[in-house]
Amino acid sequence: METVVMQNGTLTVTTVPIPTPGPREVLVKVLAAGICGSDLHCLAHASELLSSTKAATGIDLFDINDPVVMGHEFCAEVVSYGPETRGTITPGTRVASPPLLLRERPILIGYGGPDIPGAYSEYMILSEDLLFPVPDSISDENAALAEPLAVALHAVNRGKLGTHDVPLVIGCGPIGLAVISILKMQGTGPIVAADFSPSRRAMAEALGADVVVDPRVTSPYDAWREVAATDDPEQMAPGNLMFPPGFRPAVVFECVGVPGVIQQILDGAPANATVVVAGVCMQQDSFYPTFAILKEIDLVFSIAFSPEEYGEVLGHLASGALKVDGLVTSRVGLNEVADAFKRLADPEQDGKIVAIPGRH
Amino acid sequence: METVVMQNGTLTVTTVPIPTPGPREVLVKVLAAGICGSDLHCLAHASELLSSTKAATGIDLFDINDPVVMGHEFCAEVVSYGPETRGTITPGTRVASPPLLLRERPILIGYGGPDIPGAYSEYMILSEDLLFPVPDSISDENAALAEPLAVALHAVNRGKLGTHDVPLVIGCGPIGLAVISILKMQGTGPIVAADFSPSRRAMAEALGADVVVDPRVTSPYDAWREVAATDDPEQMAPGNLMFPPGFRPAVVFECVGVPGVIQQILDGAPANATVVVAGVCMQQDSFYPTFAILKEIDLVFSIAFSPEEYGEVLGHLASGALKVDGLVTSRVGLNEVADAFKRLADPEQDGKIVAIPGRH
Repeated sequence: METVVMQNGTLTVTTVPIPTPGPREVLVKVLAAGICGSDLHCLAHASELLSSTKAATGIDLFDINDPVVMGHEFCAEVVSYGPETRGTITPGTRVASPPLLLRERPILIGYGGPDIPGAYSEYMILSEDLLFPVPDSISDENAALAEPLAVALHAVNRGKLGTHDVPLVIGCGPIGLAVISILKMQGTGPIVAADFSPSRRAMAEALGADVVVDPRVTSPYDAWREVAATDDPEQMAPGNLMFPPGFRPAVVFECVGVPGVIQQILDGAPANATVVVAGVCMQQDSFYPTFAILKEIDLVFSIAFSPEEYGEVLGHLASGALKVDGLVTSRVGLNEVADAFKRLADPEQDGKIVAIPGRH
Repeated sequence: METVVMQNGTLTVTTVPIPTPGPREVLVKVLAAGICGSDLHCLAHASELLSSTKAATGIDLFDINDPVVMGHEFCAEVVSYGPETRGTITPGTRVASPPLLLRERPILIGYGGPDIPGAYSEYMILSEDLLFPVPDSISDENAALAEPLAVALHAVNRGKLGTHDVPLVIGCGPIGLAVISILKMQGTGPIVAADFSPSRRAMAEALGADVVVDPRVTSPYDAWREVAATDDPEQMAPGNLMFPPGFRPAVVFECVGVPGVIQQILDGAPANATVVVAGVCMQQDSFYPTFAILKEIDLVFSIAFSPEEYGEVLGHLASGALKVDGLVTSRVGLNEVADAFKRLADPEQDGKIVAIPGRH
């Protein structure tokens, strides 16, 4: 089969054997695979990713010299079952799954070699226990979006928004946009969002953000204060001695992930804000704790999601409650994945690009 | 009256006029004033304190060249009432109060000049609406502890500990010790605590910490894991893919407030920990967000408290539920305050020192 192998910082289409599902595993044919910002980072900064993961968790994600097949956002079709399976989902059925192989030591799909490939591949293997059948009303590419949407749902859940909370989304890349679509579905608002890129701002508006600003022109925090101001004591956040009340509670979503952004948010955010950090900053970062202390801010770090949250997203996509049209801006074959990685470095060119094995 | 004036980094006992209470204010005679770590910091690093407060809040706490009378932890006795007061508390009655003067622009008591002095003074003025009568069962010096105990109660409240949570207190200075006494009163435990100082570790044990370690000898996080390990799924924190479950939930209290401690906690803490930052680090600090992200940690910054929390502490002190014996290790007159500040730089010499105006 064809697969896209990452090795020494380059992506190459390679022909490898179709992998063999082990016990409780299923062979599937990939129908759509979303290209994630983490993959771009992994390609450009593998050694940094490996060392920071190792430092924080003690885990070796993979060896720097190993061939790796990335891709952890996907929709696929059941082909055949390995041993010890129940086989209740008929071959030919479309499925999606959190990117996790439930082996004795669980494996993150998308960070293994060609024997346990990620989704930039014609075939891959999944754990039967984590398969979700994809309802007919969800397209292949939208089913592949379930993964980043589950990341966003988890981030929103971590924010524990109350009825009167006003969200502010800093950064409208794929995760920021997914957060906006989840907030819109939940009816939370007004939703304030900020990004330097005009095309991302347009996508944020299309997905339901109510106020979208260019931080070069308008402070996102001023824009937030304008819509969050209230004189209704029932809607008001407590404020504190140094920061008088007068605003609805704030939940800020950090969806950028570069050094310095957390301090910018601590500087701009109102008192008592919850800041959900969904951007993944791999480098050391600096901040002034006094800003967080005097405002009594909660910095809530978020990365993963539960299988339940993943299933919930598929349900909302199927019912039409969760609207994501326009998030995918381009489709490519496996032979164009390397080029798509380059294009995604420019936020003006594309939103989400989906790879479709078999397309040329 | 005698007062201790801070100016240009020195403390001097000075005679100044007794201040005049304004509308809705009360003149009180100070009976006991706790010396706080913030005051030590303010004396040694006033310009840093002023610039970091100004940067974070836009507020000028005081002018660097102004004379300031510090002291924001106190017990006092009602002397006389200003205009527009109700006067319901009889002169001679002991009172305590959060350190706040409710003027049009609220004033933090302990950061004003000799006309609105803090508690290192024979007399001071308070807002009538914030007076709490001190029950007879509370000594003067324990009533003065209500302020740091309210800071600790607020920090514990910010930690939202569940039934099975196991707290870890990093740093057993006055705030760490106050946190331990609040946790002990609430019956939370086992309480794990860590400090480099043998005398502070002894105080932590006396106040109710169950496991107290010297970080040079035993990792506080290993000590926590030893007592927090469980195989009861009902007690267990969720863990995550990279950090398997097996422990009760963690709430870590950062009661040190120097650069680097937050990163140490992110490194050592278990997944899904809540970290309450009660230490006030005035300098820039650095950390690796990946540690917080991969563990999905909540960094909850805490500084102030509500009048309700202050009153709650006085109630617990009065009933005897909140035990703080041993926290105060020394009493000094106003003329010895400057010397007490020097002694407090050495954690081996003293716990909390209380100034008693009139004592010589």
